[in-house]
Amino acid sequence: MALNDVPPDCDFKMDFETIATFRARPRMDVAAVASELTSIGRWFYQQKWVLGTSGNFSAVLSREPFRMLITASGVHKGTMTPDNFLQVDSSGKAVGGKQHPSAEMLIHLTIISELNAGSILHTHSVWGTILSEAHAVSGGLMIQGYEMLKGLSGIRTHEYEEWLPILENSQDYTELSKSLSLVLREKPGIHGFLLRNHGLYTWGSNIEEAKRHVEIFEFLLEVIGRRQTITSSIP
Amino acid sequence: MALNDVPPDCDFKMDFETIATFRARPRMDVAAVASELTSIGRWFYQQKWVLGTSGNFSAVLSREPFRMLITASGVHKGTMTPDNFLQVDSSGKAVGGKQHPSAEMLIHLTIISELNAGSILHTHSVWGTILSEAHAVSGGLMIQGYEMLKGLSGIRTHEYEEWLPILENSQDYTELSKSLSLVLREKPGIHGFLLRNHGLYTWGSNIEEAKRHVEIFEFLLEVIGRRQTITSSIP
Amino acid sequence: MALNDVPPDCDFKMDFETIATFRARPRMDVAAVASELTSIGRWFYQQKWVLGTSGNFSAVLSREPFRMLITASGVHKGTMTPDNFLQVDSSGKAVGGKQHPSAEMLIHLTIISELNAGSILHTHSVWGTILSEAHAVSGGLMIQGYEMLKGLSGIRTHEYEEWLPILENSQDYTELSKSLSLVLREKPGIHGFLLRNHGLYTWGSNIEEAKRHVEIFEFLLEVIGRRQTITSSIP
Amino acid sequence: MALNDVPPDCDFKMDFETIATFRARPRMDVAAVASELTSIGRWFYQQKWVLGTSGNFSAVLSREPFRMLITASGVHKGTMTPDNFLQVDSSGKAVGGKQHPSAEMLIHLTIISELNAGSILHTHSVWGTILSEAHAVSGGLMIQGYEMLKGLSGIRTHEYEEWLPILENSQDYTELSKSLSLVLREKPGIHGFLLRNHGLYTWGSNIEEAKRHVEIFEFLLEVIGRRQTITSSIP
Repeated sequence: MALNDVPPDCDFKMDFETIATFRARPRMDVAAVASELTSIGRWFYQQKWVLGTSGNFSAVLSREPFRMLITASGVHKGTMTPDNFLQVDSSGKAVGGKQHPSAEMLIHLTIISELNAGSILHTHSVWGTILSEAHAVSGGLMIQGYEMLKGLSGIRTHEYEEWLPILENSQDYTELSKSLSLVLREKPGIHGFLLRNHGLYTWGSNIEEAKRHVEIFEFLLEVIGRRQTITSSIP
Repeated sequence: MALNDVPPDCDFKMDFETIATFRARPRMDVAAVASELTSIGRWFYQQKWVLGTSGNFSAVLSREPFRMLITASGVHKGTMTPDNFLQVDSSGKAVGGKQHPSAEMLIHLTIISELNAGSILHTHSVWGTILSEAHAVSGGLMIQGYEMLKGLSGIRTHEYEEWLPILENSQDYTELSKSLSLVLREKPGIHGFLLRNHGLYTWGSNIEEAKRHVEIFEFLLEVIGRRQTITSSIP
Repeated sequence: MALNDVPPDCDFKMDFETIATFRARPRMDVAAVASELTSIGRWFYQQKWVLGTSGNFSAVLSREPFRMLITASGVHKGTMTPDNFLQVDSSGKAVGGKQHPSAEMLIHLTIISELNAGSILHTHSVWGTILSEAHAVSGGLMIQGYEMLKGLSGIRTHEYEEWLPILENSQDYTELSKSLSLVLREKPGIHGFLLRNHGLYTWGSNIEEAKRHVEIFEFLLEVIGRRQTITSSIP
Repeated sequence: MALNDVPPDCDFKMDFETIATFRARPRMDVAAVASELTSIGRWFYQQKWVLGTSGNFSAVLSREPFRMLITASGVHKGTMTPDNFLQVDSSGKAVGGKQHPSAEMLIHLTIISELNAGSILHTHSVWGTILSEAHAVSGGLMIQGYEMLKGLSGIRTHEYEEWLPILENSQDYTELSKSLSLVLREKPGIHGFLLRNHGLYTWGSNIEEAKRHVEIFEFLLEVIGRRQTITSSIP
């Protein structure tokens, strides 16, 4: 799919210009990819999904040699500029530039390695945080029956059962990456996971798909969370 | 009513220019109708009523021959462009263009056929999803006593009792359309319905009226849903 | 106070231009007053306080002769244009123009008559609706202890006790106005009231003050409403 | 860190221009600091964290002589203009200009005096207000286990235990400042505090850091508050 998602802008004409520009640029263009992730960051920020310096985004620029563009460490994801990104190689080493990658980069590399994903987006929402704690003892959350599930890659029916694992958070990202690799191998077909009290990671074959997955999961997490606040059946 | 609703824009001057432009164009102008639905999609997106690729919108362009403009399948309704729409005839066959209509198009055609509606809008909100599940066993939701009901077409008092049916979701849209036809005939006068865990469908004689109905129902669904989270009478 | 509130705009430079323009125009300028109420409507719409065609706004243009500018009937308050307003005299008769005043205009005239208010704003929020029903049996809501109360005209301490009456909704606005007059005389010093399942009315000596009062009450209603959803003391 | 946070703007090009302009200006430039605080106010207003005339912001312009820029009294923090700020010296006396500082200025001076902070931001959110009352009897709130805590200055792990004191609100700011001094000395290392039913105060070495702290605390307060509304473990 060639459509690049640009969050709603007040400047109506700008929307069409920006979208046309994105469509005209080659996918591997660093500036275009950075712009797209910047726009996504602004939209996520408006939803309060990347407050403070939370969240991080990546996109594969090339496979041979491997180059991944990722948000720099300590950067506010809602107000990024072109110098807030850096390129890393397959070992996670920064290529050029002066920025330092966040340790969470290892998670991105793990997902790409295990699933050949094209883009990974990590959000840190209120409902994602709440549910990651509320269902931690179960090791995850089974989501089923929602039409919204059909928006996940490869899913064609609302009767699908999507398992959303919850991993324990850790500052040791090397160990965390190992745990993640095991989960991704044990549960092929999943589309995301939660880090306990840390938020959602999801991915796609490209940025657009990853963003769509974020919106779907954040929607479902809010629905499930709010359902747990219902006390009365009387409308 | 000739007023075309344009969602709030930050560009204050643009608002008046855009509105004046909409008013100047004939109602059947495809570009104008597509622009109006695009604006509505952006507003709904800002409210998180059409996340992912959820939701779909249509408007009747002409009755003889019948032509309906509808959002294409798999398109993000919050960031649409002119090529995200297609025209279909009364049998649902795409007329010109390369886009494919969503299977949900059958629902739109059914509503138009039964009620002679001019525009149908489908949103997929958090509260709509929650209540569609919570009240599914009752087959619907009776809404009464709210002043907001007066905004529904033909309703003049808050004491009106609006029945909002809840239909079981299905991927078989042919069967779903048949069930819908029965409901629309059994319950003449209703202004919308919920698909279980799938959201709201509502309509109007034109786009503006349909949008107004969406806002009214989404407001009422949120009020009713939140009332069911109240645990204490002590302020 | 001469400051005219303009809701946040994305166009940063536009903000200063618009504000400077508002400040330069005389207070009685119909176009300026209409612009200010239009901006307020857009902000309220973004907060979902005037969905559908709910809400209505007025401002006194002159006392001798009496002229009040008020939003027209059936107009969407979030996307208004200059022709969505009309002037009425002290009897409520439209002066010039082709628009028809809403029957709710009688409420505005009553408040102006009893309190000599300069502007009345009516919003129709989710929490205002919920609390107007939840506390209807008490005839109102006592609000105290909140620092936010200090923003109400004449209030200097958070220890103030603000009584927010709840009146029964009715389609007979003549009778409703009579009931309102009684309440305003019995409870001098109040800054607003709720109509059951219909929302908030508040006022000020000018538009800016009325808008400030709306924000304060809508904030307090949300705080009080959410406090009634707390089930556990364990964070 | 030289990055100045500018809230998401619809004008995509404007973003880069504004950010570049902020970066080019010296940190002590009054106009630049006022612009930055104005942008922050607009963003906080969009989140409903500074409704009415609530909230106040300050930044140290110079240490020798001491000059602090602070928002004027009674000003709407969401729609500020350059003349809504004033400079005060170390005794709180206004330097030049015609505006009057809010009595809450004493809180800002106390924090600067005790902690050598560079900027103080006070927000007045719904969840901050709710939790400040709900946990008042405990004198504060212990926040731990959240990855978001890592965004607080000096904190490197989610296992950190952050104490958020709750002080009783008062209109006697001289006494309140004394109480605050005691708390700041008893609890070195805290990053903010709540005033009962009055909201959050937090600070940073510069405006950017203070803003980041606001977002982190407001996020955590919402998470903690919503967790207290959960009634069921069944998703």
